Amino acid sequence: MEKLIIIKVGGNIIDDANKLQNFLQQFANIESYKILVHGGGKIASTIGEKLGIKSNYINGRRITDEHTIDVVTMVYAGLINKKIVAQLQSLQCNAIGLSGADANIIPATKRPVREIDYGFVGDVNSNNINIIFLQTILLQNTIPVIAPITHNEKGILLNTNADTIAQEIAKAMSIFFTTTLIYSFEKDGLLMDVDDETSVIKHLNFEKFNEYKMPIAASGKAIITDGMLPKLENAFNAIQNGVSKVIIGNANQLQDLILNKVGTTISYA
Amino acid sequence: MEKLIIIKVGGNIIDDANKLQNFLQQFANIESYKILVHGGGKIASTIGEKLGIKSNYINGRRITDEHTIDVVTMVYAGLINKKIVAQLQSLQCNAIGLSGADANIIPATKRPVREIDYGFVGDVNSNNINIIFLQTILLQNTIPVIAPITHNEKGILLNTNADTIAQEIAKAMSIFFTTTLIYSFEKDGLLMDVDDETSVIKHLNFEKFNEYKMPIAASGKAIITDGMLPKLENAFNAIQNGVSKVIIGNANQLQDLILNKVGTTISYA
Repeated sequence: MEKLIIIKVGGNIIDDANKLQNFLQQFANIESYKILVHGGGKIASTIGEKLGIKSNYINGRRITDEHTIDVVTMVYAGLINKKIVAQLQSLQCNAIGLSGADANIIPATKRPVREIDYGFVGDVNSNNINIIFLQTILLQNTIPVIAPITHNEKGILLNTNADTIAQEIAKAMSIFFTTTLIYSFEKDGLLMDVDDETSVIKHLNFEKFNEYKMPIAASGKAIITDGMLPKLENAFNAIQNGVSKVIIGNANQLQDLILNKVGTTISYA
Repeated sequence: MEKLIIIKVGGNIIDDANKLQNFLQQFANIESYKILVHGGGKIASTIGEKLGIKSNYINGRRITDEHTIDVVTMVYAGLINKKIVAQLQSLQCNAIGLSGADANIIPATKRPVREIDYGFVGDVNSNNINIIFLQTILLQNTIPVIAPITHNEKGILLNTNADTIAQEIAKAMSIFFTTTLIYSFEKDGLLMDVDDETSVIKHLNFEKFNEYKMPIAASGKAIITDGMLPKLENAFNAIQNGVSKVIIGNANQLQDLILNKVGTTISYA
Protein backbone atom coordinates (compact mmCIF):
# COMPACT_ATOMS: atom_id res chain seq x y z
CA MET A 1 0.00 0.00 0.00
CA GLU A 2 1.03 3.61 -0.55
CA LYS A 3 2.05 5.76 2.41
CA LEU A 4 -0.27 8.45 3.84
CA ILE A 5 0.86 10.84 6.56
CA ILE A 6 -1.83 12.56 8.65
CA ILE A 7 -0.43 15.54 10.52
CA LYS A 8 -2.20 17.47 13.25
CA VAL A 9 -0.70 20.89 13.94
CA GLY A 10 -1.56 22.45 17.27
CA GLY A 11 -2.83 25.85 18.23
CA ASN A 12 0.36 27.42 19.51
CA ILE A 13 2.02 27.03 16.12
CA ILE A 14 -0.96 28.61 14.38
CA ASP A 15 -0.74 31.65 16.66
CA ASP A 16 2.87 32.30 15.60
CA ALA A 17 3.26 33.42 11.97
CA ASN A 18 6.95 32.47 11.74
CA LYS A 19 6.50 29.01 13.25
CA LEU A 20 3.48 28.39 11.04
CA GLN A 21 5.38 29.43 7.91
CA ASN A 22 8.28 27.13 8.86
CA PHE A 23 5.89 24.24 9.52
CA LEU A 24 3.96 24.76 6.27
CA GLN A 25 7.18 24.86 4.26
CA GLN A 26 8.17 21.46 5.70
CA PHE A 27 4.64 20.13 5.18
CA ALA A 28 4.68 21.26 1.53
CA ASN A 29 7.95 19.37 0.99
CA ILE A 30 6.57 15.98 2.12
CA GLU A 31 6.52 13.75 -0.93
CA SER A 32 4.02 11.07 0.12
CA TYR A 33 0.25 11.45 0.29
CA LYS A 34 -0.62 13.75 3.19
CA ILE A 35 -3.50 15.32 5.10
CA LEU A 36 -3.26 18.30 7.45
CA VAL A 37 -5.61 18.73 10.41
CA HIS A 38 -5.29 22.03 12.22
CA GLY A 39 -6.44 23.22 15.62
CA GLY A 40 -7.82 26.58 16.51
CA GLY A 41 -5.31 28.58 18.48
CA LYS A 42 -6.16 31.55 20.61
CA ILE A 43 -7.61 33.62 17.77
CA ALA A 44 -11.13 32.27 18.32
CA SER A 45 -11.07 33.33 21.98
CA THR A 46 -9.70 36.78 21.11
CA ILE A 47 -12.34 37.35 18.43
CA GLY A 48 -15.07 35.85 20.61
CA GLU A 49 -14.18 38.25 23.42
CA LYS A 50 -14.25 41.25 21.07
CA LEU A 51 -17.71 40.12 19.94
CA GLY A 52 -18.76 39.91 23.59
CA ILE A 53 -18.83 36.10 23.71
CA LYS A 54 -16.99 34.57 26.62
CA SER A 55 -15.08 31.29 26.34
CA ASN A 56 -16.11 28.69 28.89
CA TYR A 57 -14.10 25.57 29.61
CA ILE A 58 -14.88 22.46 31.68
CA ASN A 59 -12.06 19.90 32.06
CA GLY A 60 -10.08 21.62 29.32
CA ARG A 61 -12.95 21.29 26.85
CA ARG A 62 -14.51 24.40 25.42
CA ILE A 63 -18.25 24.70 26.10
CA THR A 64 -19.76 25.62 22.76
CA ASP A 65 -22.99 27.61 22.95
CA GLU A 66 -24.85 28.82 19.85
CA HIS A 67 -22.73 31.99 19.64
CA THR A 68 -19.47 30.16 20.19
CA ILE A 69 -20.12 27.64 17.39
CA ASP A 70 -20.56 30.58 15.00
CA VAL A 71 -17.26 32.07 16.16
CA VAL A 72 -15.28 28.84 15.89
CA THR A 73 -16.83 28.08 12.49
CA MET A 74 -15.75 31.52 11.26
CA VAL A 75 -12.28 31.34 12.73
CA TYR A 76 -11.38 27.66 12.24
CA ALA A 77 -13.10 26.87 8.93
CA GLY A 78 -12.82 30.42 7.56
CA LEU A 79 -9.89 32.54 8.69
CA ILE A 80 -7.33 29.92 9.77
CA ASN A 81 -8.23 27.28 7.20
CA LYS A 82 -8.17 29.62 4.20
CA LYS A 83 -4.97 31.39 5.30
CA ILE A 84 -3.23 28.01 5.58
CA VAL A 85 -4.60 26.94 2.19
CA ALA A 86 -3.45 30.18 0.53
CA GLN A 87 0.01 29.84 2.09
CA LEU A 88 0.32 26.21 0.97
CA GLN A 89 -0.81 27.16 -2.55
CA SER A 90 2.00 29.74 -2.64
CA LEU A 91 4.39 26.87 -1.78
CA GLN A 92 3.14 24.83 -4.78
CA CYS A 93 1.16 22.52 -2.50
CA ASN A 94 -2.32 22.09 -4.00
CA ALA A 95 -4.25 22.34 -0.72
CA ILE A 96 -8.03 22.16 -0.38
CA GLY A 97 -9.60 23.41 2.85
CA LEU A 98 -12.44 21.35 4.25
CA SER A 99 -14.65 21.19 7.31
CA GLY A 100 -16.29 17.92 8.30
CA ALA A 101 -19.52 19.11 6.66
CA ASP A 102 -17.92 19.49 3.24
CA ALA A 103 -18.62 16.47 1.06
CA ASN A 104 -19.92 14.99 4.31
CA ILE A 105 -16.38 13.91 5.19
CA ILE A 106 -16.92 13.80 8.97
CA PRO A 107 -20.47 13.06 10.16
CA ALA A 108 -20.77 13.46 13.91
CA THR A 109 -23.28 13.28 16.72
CA LYS A 110 -23.95 16.14 19.13
CA ARG A 111 -22.47 14.96 22.42
CA PRO A 112 -25.24 13.68 24.73
CA VAL A 113 -25.74 15.71 27.89
CA ARG A 114 -24.63 13.74 30.98
CA GLU A 115 -22.95 15.56 33.88
CA ILE A 116 -21.83 18.31 31.52
CA ASP A 117 -23.65 19.92 28.61
CA TYR A 118 -20.83 20.62 26.17
CA GLY A 119 -23.24 22.36 23.80
CA PHE A 120 -22.51 22.18 20.08
CA VAL A 121 -19.72 19.64 20.37
CA GLY A 122 -19.54 16.69 18.01
CA ASP A 123 -18.37 13.13 18.55
CA VAL A 124 -17.19 11.64 15.26
CA ASN A 125 -19.22 8.78 13.74
CA SER A 126 -16.09 6.70 13.08
CA ASN A 127 -17.64 4.28 10.59
CA ASN A 128 -19.16 7.01 8.41
CA ILE A 129 -16.08 9.07 7.54
CA ASN A 130 -16.19 9.68 3.79
CA ILE A 131 -12.97 7.80 3.03
CA ILE A 132 -13.87 7.36 -0.65
CA PHE A 133 -14.00 11.11 -1.17
CA LEU A 134 -10.76 11.69 0.74
CA GLN A 135 -9.05 8.99 -1.31
CA THR A 136 -10.32 10.51 -4.58
CA ILE A 137 -9.02 13.93 -3.57
CA LEU A 138 -5.64 12.49 -2.57
CA LEU A 139 -5.26 10.52 -5.79
CA GLN A 140 -5.68 13.81 -7.67
CA ASN A 141 -2.70 15.14 -5.70
CA THR A 142 -4.93 17.58 -3.88
CA ILE A 143 -4.03 17.94 -0.20
CA PRO A 144 -6.89 18.07 2.32
CA VAL A 145 -6.50 20.72 5.04
CA ILE A 146 -9.15 19.95 7.63
CA ALA A 147 -10.65 22.38 10.16
CA PRO A 148 -11.99 20.89 13.43
CA ILE A 149 -15.66 21.49 12.64
CA THR A 150 -18.03 18.58 11.96
CA HIS A 151 -21.79 18.34 11.37
CA ASN A 152 -24.69 16.17 12.43
CA GLU A 153 -26.07 15.64 8.88
CA LYS A 154 -29.18 17.55 10.00
CA GLY A 155 -27.83 21.01 9.29
CA ILE A 156 -26.04 21.64 12.58
CA LEU A 157 -22.31 22.41 12.76
CA LEU A 158 -20.35 20.99 15.70
CA ASN A 159 -17.05 21.87 17.34
CA THR A 160 -14.78 18.82 17.46
CA ASN A 161 -11.36 18.17 18.97
CA ALA A 162 -8.71 18.33 16.23
CA ASP A 163 -6.61 15.54 17.82
CA THR A 164 -9.65 13.27 17.65
CA ILE A 165 -10.36 14.18 14.03
CA ALA A 166 -6.76 13.39 13.05
CA GLN A 167 -6.95 10.05 14.86
CA GLU A 168 -10.30 9.10 13.30
CA ILE A 169 -9.12 9.98 9.79
CA ALA A 170 -5.84 8.08 10.25
CA LYS A 171 -7.73 4.97 11.41
CA ALA A 172 -10.35 5.15 8.65
CA MET A 173 -7.82 5.76 5.86
CA SER A 174 -5.77 2.72 6.98
CA ILE A 175 -8.05 0.68 4.69
CA PHE A 176 -6.41 2.28 1.65
CA PHE A 177 -2.99 3.40 2.87
CA THR A 178 -0.16 2.59 5.27
CA THR A 179 -0.83 5.48 7.62
CA THR A 180 1.40 7.51 9.92
CA LEU A 181 -0.22 9.88 12.42
CA ILE A 182 1.85 12.82 13.65
CA TYR A 183 0.77 15.08 16.49
CA SER A 184 2.90 18.19 16.12
CA PHE A 185 2.94 21.16 18.47
CA GLU A 186 5.36 23.53 20.20
CA LYS A 187 7.04 20.90 22.41
CA ASP A 188 9.71 18.37 21.39
CA GLY A 189 7.59 15.39 22.42
CA LEU A 190 6.22 13.85 25.60
CA LEU A 191 8.45 15.14 28.38
CA MET A 192 9.53 13.16 31.43
CA ASP A 193 9.73 16.52 33.22
CA VAL A 194 7.36 19.14 31.84
CA ASP A 195 9.82 21.93 32.75
CA ASP A 196 12.76 20.29 30.96
CA GLU A 197 12.50 20.48 27.17
CA THR A 198 15.42 18.02 26.84
CA SER A 199 13.61 15.26 28.77
CA VAL A 200 11.83 13.85 25.72
CA ILE A 201 10.57 10.28 26.17
CA LYS A 202 11.76 8.65 22.92
CA HIS A 203 9.40 5.74 23.06
CA LEU A 204 6.12 5.15 24.89
CA ASN A 205 4.30 1.83 24.98
CA PHE A 206 0.94 1.07 26.54
CA GLU A 207 2.40 -0.33 29.73
CA LYS A 208 4.51 2.79 30.31
CA PHE A 209 1.53 4.98 29.39
CA ASN A 210 -0.55 3.42 32.16
CA GLU A 211 2.37 3.74 34.57
CA TYR A 212 3.00 7.41 33.73
CA LYS A 213 -0.65 8.29 34.31
CA MET A 214 -0.24 7.38 38.00
CA PRO A 215 1.02 9.98 40.47
CA ILE A 216 4.64 9.50 41.51
CA ALA A 217 4.94 8.89 45.24
CA ALA A 218 7.70 11.51 45.72
CA SER A 219 5.93 14.46 44.07
CA GLY A 220 2.30 13.34 44.09
CA LYS A 221 2.17 14.34 40.42
CA ALA A 222 1.87 12.14 37.34
CA ILE A 223 4.17 12.46 34.30
CA ILE A 224 1.19 12.44 31.95
CA THR A 225 -1.46 14.96 32.94
CA ASP A 226 -4.29 17.14 31.64
CA GLY A 227 -3.46 18.32 28.16
CA MET A 228 -1.37 15.33 27.13
CA LEU A 229 -3.79 12.66 28.38
CA PRO A 230 -6.47 12.95 25.66
CA LYS A 231 -3.75 13.32 23.00
CA LEU A 232 -2.13 10.07 24.15
CA GLU A 233 -5.47 8.30 24.40
CA ASN A 234 -6.03 9.30 20.78
CA ALA A 235 -2.53 8.09 19.91
CA PHE A 236 -3.08 4.63 21.46
CA ASN A 237 -6.54 4.38 19.94
CA ALA A 238 -4.92 4.96 16.53
CA ILE A 239 -2.03 2.51 16.98
CA GLN A 240 -4.42 -0.21 18.14
CA ASN A 241 -6.75 0.28 15.16
CA GLY A 242 -4.72 0.03 12.00
CA VAL A 243 -2.45 3.08 12.09
CA SER A 244 1.15 1.98 11.46
CA LYS A 245 3.04 4.70 13.25
CA VAL A 246 2.19 7.47 15.71
CA ILE A 247 4.75 10.17 16.56
CA ILE A 248 4.40 13.21 18.82
CA GLY A 249 6.78 16.16 18.59
CA ASN A 250 7.79 19.62 17.49
CA ALA A 251 6.02 21.09 14.45
CA ASN A 252 9.21 22.90 13.52
CA GLN A 253 11.06 19.58 13.24
CA LEU A 254 8.47 18.00 10.99
CA GLN A 255 10.89 16.37 8.59
CA ASP A 256 12.91 14.76 11.37
CA LEU A 257 9.69 13.69 13.11
CA ILE A 258 8.57 11.83 10.00
CA LEU A 259 11.98 10.16 9.80
CA ASN A 260 11.66 9.12 13.47
CA LYS A 261 14.82 11.04 14.35
CA VAL A 262 13.13 13.15 17.03
CA GLY A 263 9.94 13.19 19.09
CA THR A 264 8.07 10.48 21.00
CA THR A 265 7.13 7.31 19.15
CA ILE A 266 4.03 5.51 20.34
CA SER A 267 3.69 1.75 20.11
CA TYR A 268 1.49 -0.79 21.82
CA ALA A 269 4.14 -3.32 22.85
CA MET B 1 -23.09 18.06 -23.71
CA GLU B 2 -24.56 17.69 -20.23
CA LYS B 3 -26.30 20.65 -18.60
CA LEU B 4 -24.66 22.65 -15.80
CA ILE B 5 -26.51 25.37 -13.90
CA ILE B 6 -24.44 28.00 -12.07
CA ILE B 7 -26.54 29.90 -9.54
CA LYS B 8 -25.50 33.04 -7.71
CA VAL B 9 -27.61 33.81 -4.64
CA GLY B 10 -27.49 37.35 -3.37
CA GLY B 11 -26.88 38.80 0.03
CA ASN B 12 -30.44 39.71 1.01
CA ILE B 13 -31.53 36.08 0.76
CA ILE B 14 -28.60 34.97 2.93
CA ASP B 15 -29.62 37.47 5.64
CA ASP B 16 -33.12 35.92 5.89
CA ALA B 17 -33.15 32.38 7.35
CA ASN B 18 -36.58 31.50 5.91
CA LYS B 19 -35.83 32.75 2.42
CA LEU B 20 -32.46 30.98 2.49
CA GLN B 21 -34.05 27.70 3.59
CA ASN B 22 -36.65 27.97 0.82
CA PHE B 23 -33.95 28.72 -1.76
CA LEU B 24 -31.68 25.87 -0.62
CA GLN B 25 -34.58 23.40 -0.75
CA GLN B 26 -35.22 24.35 -4.38
CA PHE B 27 -31.49 24.27 -5.13
CA ALA B 28 -31.18 20.79 -3.62
CA ASN B 29 -34.01 19.57 -5.89
CA ILE B 30 -32.29 20.59 -9.14
CA GLU B 31 -31.45 17.40 -10.98
CA SER B 32 -28.75 18.57 -13.38
CA TYR B 33 -25.14 19.35 -12.49
CA LYS B 34 -25.06 22.55 -10.44
CA ILE B 35 -22.75 25.02 -8.72
CA LEU B 36 -23.78 27.57 -6.08
CA VAL B 37 -21.97 30.89 -5.67
CA HIS B 38 -23.04 32.93 -2.68
CA GLY B 39 -22.59 36.56 -1.73
CA GLY B 40 -21.88 37.94 1.67
CA GLY B 41 -24.93 39.67 3.08
CA LYS B 42 -24.84 42.18 5.86
CA ILE B 43 -23.35 39.79 8.44
CA ALA B 44 -19.78 40.76 7.54
CA SER B 45 -20.51 44.45 8.15
CA THR B 46 -22.27 43.69 11.45
CA ILE B 47 -19.40 41.51 12.69
CA GLY B 48 -16.80 43.94 11.35
CA GLU B 49 -18.44 46.79 13.27
CA LYS B 50 -18.52 44.76 16.49
CA LEU B 51 -14.81 44.09 16.00
CA GLY B 52 -14.25 47.83 15.54
CA ILE B 53 -13.61 47.60 11.80
CA LYS B 54 -15.59 50.04 9.68
CA SER B 55 -16.87 49.15 6.23
CA ASN B 56 -15.82 51.60 3.53
CA TYR B 57 -17.41 51.69 0.10
CA ILE B 58 -16.47 53.57 -3.07
CA ASN B 59 -18.88 53.28 -6.02
CA GLY B 60 -20.72 50.46 -4.27
CA ARG B 61 -17.52 48.42 -3.96
CA ARG B 62 -16.26 47.54 -0.52
CA ILE B 63 -12.75 48.81 0.20
CA THR B 64 -10.94 45.86 1.69
CA ASP B 65 -8.13 46.73 4.07
CA GLU B 66 -6.06 44.08 5.90
CA HIS B 67 -8.59 43.83 8.75
CA THR B 68 -11.58 43.69 6.41
CA ILE B 69 -10.14 40.82 4.35
CA ASP B 70 -9.84 38.80 7.58
CA VAL B 71 -13.47 39.57 8.44
CA VAL B 72 -14.86 38.70 5.01
CA THR B 73 -12.74 35.53 4.87
CA MET B 74 -14.17 34.47 8.25
CA VAL B 75 -17.74 35.35 7.41
CA TYR B 76 -17.98 34.39 3.72
CA ALA B 77 -15.70 31.33 3.56
CA GLY B 78 -16.35 30.27 7.16
CA LEU B 79 -19.70 31.12 8.70
CA ILE B 80 -21.95 31.54 5.65
CA ASN B 81 -20.29 28.92 3.48
CA LYS B 82 -20.29 26.17 6.12
CA LYS B 83 -23.86 26.90 7.26
CA ILE B 84 -25.07 26.61 3.67
CA VAL B 85 -23.09 23.39 3.21
CA ALA B 86 -24.48 21.87 6.42
CA GLN B 87 -28.05 22.83 5.41
CA LEU B 88 -27.61 21.35 1.93
CA GLN B 89 -26.17 18.16 3.42
CA SER B 90 -29.30 17.86 5.57
CA LEU B 91 -31.30 18.07 2.31
CA GLN B 92 -29.32 15.14 0.84
CA CYS B 93 -27.36 17.47 -1.42
CA ASN B 94 -23.68 16.51 -1.19
CA ALA B 95 -22.30 20.05 -1.03
CA ILE B 96 -18.63 20.96 -0.71
CA GLY B 97 -17.75 24.49 0.36
CA LEU B 98 -14.83 26.12 -1.42
CA SER B 99 -13.08 29.45 -1.62
CA GLY B 100 -11.12 30.40 -4.71
CA ALA B 101 -7.91 29.40 -2.91
CA ASP B 102 -9.05 25.81 -2.36
CA ALA B 103 -7.59 23.50 -4.99
CA ASN B 104 -6.53 26.78 -6.64
CA ILE B 105 -9.95 26.98 -8.31
CA ILE B 106 -9.94 30.77 -8.76
CA PRO B 107 -6.52 32.42 -9.11
CA ALA B 108 -6.82 36.20 -9.11
CA THR B 109 -4.72 39.34 -9.24
CA LYS B 110 -4.85 42.08 -6.62
CA ARG B 111 -6.58 44.97 -8.36
CA PRO B 112 -3.99 47.55 -9.49
CA VAL B 113 -4.28 50.95 -7.79
CA ARG B 114 -5.48 53.62 -10.22
CA GLU B 115 -7.83 56.39 -9.02
CA ILE B 116 -9.01 54.14 -6.19
CA ASP B 117 -7.08 51.69 -4.03
CA TYR B 118 -9.61 48.91 -3.45
CA GLY B 119 -7.18 47.12 -1.13
CA PHE B 120 -7.34 43.33 -0.99
CA VAL B 121 -9.72 42.94 -3.91
CA GLY B 122 -9.08 40.33 -6.57
CA ASP B 123 -9.76 40.36 -10.30
CA VAL B 124 -10.22 36.80 -11.57
CA ASN B 125 -7.57 35.37 -13.92
CA SER B 126 -10.21 34.03 -16.33
CA ASN B 127 -7.97 31.60 -18.20
CA ASN B 128 -6.61 29.96 -15.06
CA ILE B 129 -9.82 28.80 -13.36
CA ASN B 130 -9.28 25.19 -12.32
CA ILE B 131 -12.01 23.77 -14.55
CA ILE B 132 -10.56 20.25 -14.42
CA PHE B 133 -10.96 20.09 -10.66
CA LEU B 134 -14.49 21.53 -10.76
CA GLN B 135 -15.44 18.99 -13.43
CA THR B 136 -13.99 16.12 -11.38
CA ILE B 137 -15.93 17.24 -8.31
CA LEU B 138 -19.16 17.56 -10.32
CA LEU B 139 -18.77 14.14 -11.95
CA GLN B 140 -18.60 12.65 -8.43
CA ASN B 141 -21.99 14.24 -7.77
CA THR B 142 -20.44 16.62 -5.27
CA ILE B 143 -21.90 20.13 -5.46
CA PRO B 144 -19.47 23.06 -5.22
CA VAL B 145 -20.65 25.92 -2.98
CA ILE B 146 -18.30 28.80 -3.65
CA ALA B 147 -17.58 31.75 -1.35
CA PRO B 148 -16.49 35.02 -2.98
CA ILE B 149 -12.88 34.90 -1.80
CA THR B 150 -10.01 34.33 -4.24
CA HIS B 151 -6.22 34.32 -3.87
CA ASN B 152 -3.17 35.60 -5.74
CA GLU B 153 -1.27 32.27 -5.65
CA LYS B 154 1.34 34.03 -3.48
CA GLY B 155 -0.43 33.43 -0.17
CA ILE B 156 -2.75 36.46 -0.18
CA LEU B 157 -6.54 36.12 0.03
CA LEU B 158 -8.64 38.57 -1.97
CA ASN B 159 -12.24 39.76 -1.77
CA THR B 160 -14.00 39.25 -5.10
CA ASN B 161 -17.45 40.15 -6.40
CA ALA B 162 -19.69 37.05 -6.31
CA ASP B 163 -21.54 38.02 -9.53
CA THR B 164 -18.20 38.13 -11.31
CA ILE B 165 -17.12 34.77 -9.88
CA ALA B 166 -20.38 33.16 -11.07
CA GLN B 167 -19.93 34.66 -14.53
CA GLU B 168 -16.28 33.58 -14.80
CA ILE B 169 -17.08 30.03 -13.71
CA ALA B 170 -20.05 29.79 -16.09
CA LYS B 171 -17.90 30.94 -19.01
CA ALA B 172 -14.98 28.66 -18.15
CA MET B 173 -17.15 25.57 -17.59
CA SER B 174 -18.84 26.05 -21.00
CA ILE B 175 -15.97 23.99 -22.43
CA PHE B 176 -17.39 20.89 -20.75
CA PHE B 177 -21.08 21.66 -20.26
CA THR B 178 -24.06 23.50 -21.73
CA THR B 179 -24.17 26.20 -19.06
CA THR B 180 -26.99 28.29 -17.64
CA LEU B 181 -26.13 31.22 -15.37
CA ILE B 182 -28.78 32.39 -12.90
CA TYR B 183 -28.48 35.55 -10.86
CA SER B 184 -31.00 35.14 -8.05
CA PHE B 185 -31.83 37.72 -5.40
CA GLU B 186 -34.81 39.28 -3.63
CA LYS B 187 -36.36 40.93 -6.71
CA ASP B 188 -38.42 39.29 -9.45
CA GLY B 189 -36.02 40.35 -12.18
CA LEU B 190 -34.89 43.55 -13.88
CA LEU B 191 -37.67 46.07 -13.24
CA MET B 192 -38.84 48.74 -15.68
CA ASP B 193 -39.82 50.77 -12.62
CA VAL B 194 -37.71 50.03 -9.54
CA ASP B 195 -40.68 50.78 -7.26
CA ASP B 196 -43.06 48.43 -9.09
CA GLU B 197 -42.32 44.74 -8.43
CA THR B 198 -44.71 43.74 -11.23
CA SER B 199 -42.81 45.67 -13.90
CA VAL B 200 -40.41 42.83 -14.69
CA ILE B 201 -38.68 43.12 -18.05
CA LYS B 202 -39.12 39.59 -19.45
CA HIS B 203 -36.37 39.81 -22.01
CA LEU B 204 -33.35 42.07 -22.34
CA ASN B 205 -31.04 42.17 -25.35
CA PHE B 206 -27.83 44.13 -25.79
CA GLU B 207 -29.51 46.93 -27.76
CA LYS B 208 -32.15 47.45 -25.05
CA PHE B 209 -29.46 47.22 -22.37
CA ASN B 210 -27.57 50.12 -23.92
CA GLU B 211 -30.81 52.06 -24.32
CA TYR B 212 -31.88 51.48 -20.67
CA LYS B 213 -28.51 52.68 -19.37
CA MET B 214 -29.28 56.16 -20.76
CA PRO B 215 -31.27 58.64 -18.65
CA ILE B 216 -34.89 59.05 -19.75
CA ALA B 217 -35.63 62.62 -20.84
CA ALA B 218 -38.78 62.91 -18.71
CA SER B 219 -37.29 61.84 -15.35
CA GLY B 220 -33.59 62.33 -15.95
CA LYS B 221 -33.10 58.81 -14.50
CA ALA B 222 -32.01 55.64 -16.28
CA ILE B 223 -33.87 52.30 -15.94
CA ILE B 224 -30.64 50.45 -15.27
CA THR B 225 -28.57 52.08 -12.55
CA ASP B 226 -25.98 51.45 -9.85
CA GLY B 227 -26.49 47.99 -8.40
CA MET B 228 -27.92 46.37 -11.52
CA LEU B 229 -25.33 47.73 -13.94
CA PRO B 230 -22.35 45.51 -12.98
CA LYS B 231 -24.69 42.50 -12.69
CA LEU B 232 -25.94 43.07 -16.25
CA GLU B 233 -22.43 43.69 -17.55
CA ASN B 234 -21.53 40.30 -16.07
CA ALA B 235 -24.64 38.79 -17.67
CA PHE B 236 -23.80 40.07 -21.17
CA ASN B 237 -20.15 39.11 -20.74
CA ALA B 238 -21.35 35.55 -20.02
CA ILE B 239 -23.85 35.31 -22.87
CA GLN B 240 -21.25 36.57 -25.36
CA ASN B 241 -18.64 34.06 -24.20
CA GLY B 242 -20.14 30.61 -24.38
CA VAL B 243 -22.85 30.61 -21.69
CA SER B 244 -26.11 29.34 -23.23
CA LYS B 245 -28.63 31.06 -21.02
CA VAL B 246 -28.58 33.87 -18.45
CA ILE B 247 -31.61 34.55 -16.25
CA ILE B 248 -32.07 37.11 -13.46
CA GLY B 249 -34.83 36.77 -10.89
CA ASN B 250 -36.20 35.86 -7.50
CA ALA B 251 -34.27 33.29 -5.46
CA ASN B 252 -37.55 32.04 -4.02
CA GLN B 253 -38.80 31.16 -7.51
CA LEU B 254 -35.70 29.21 -8.44
CA GLN B 255 -37.47 26.31 -10.11
CA ASP B 256 -39.59 28.59 -12.31
CA LEU B 257 -36.53 30.70 -13.09
CA ILE B 258 -34.69 27.66 -14.40
CA LEU B 259 -37.75 26.78 -16.51
CA ASN B 260 -37.77 30.34 -17.91
CA LYS B 261 -41.28 30.89 -16.57
CA VAL B 262 -40.34 33.97 -14.55
CA GLY B 263 -37.50 36.52 -14.31
CA THR B 264 -35.54 38.44 -16.91
CA THR B 265 -33.86 36.47 -19.68
CA ILE B 266 -30.71 37.97 -21.16
CA SER B 267 -29.76 37.45 -24.78
CA TYR B 268 -27.45 39.23 -27.16
CA ALA B 269 -29.77 39.62 -30.15
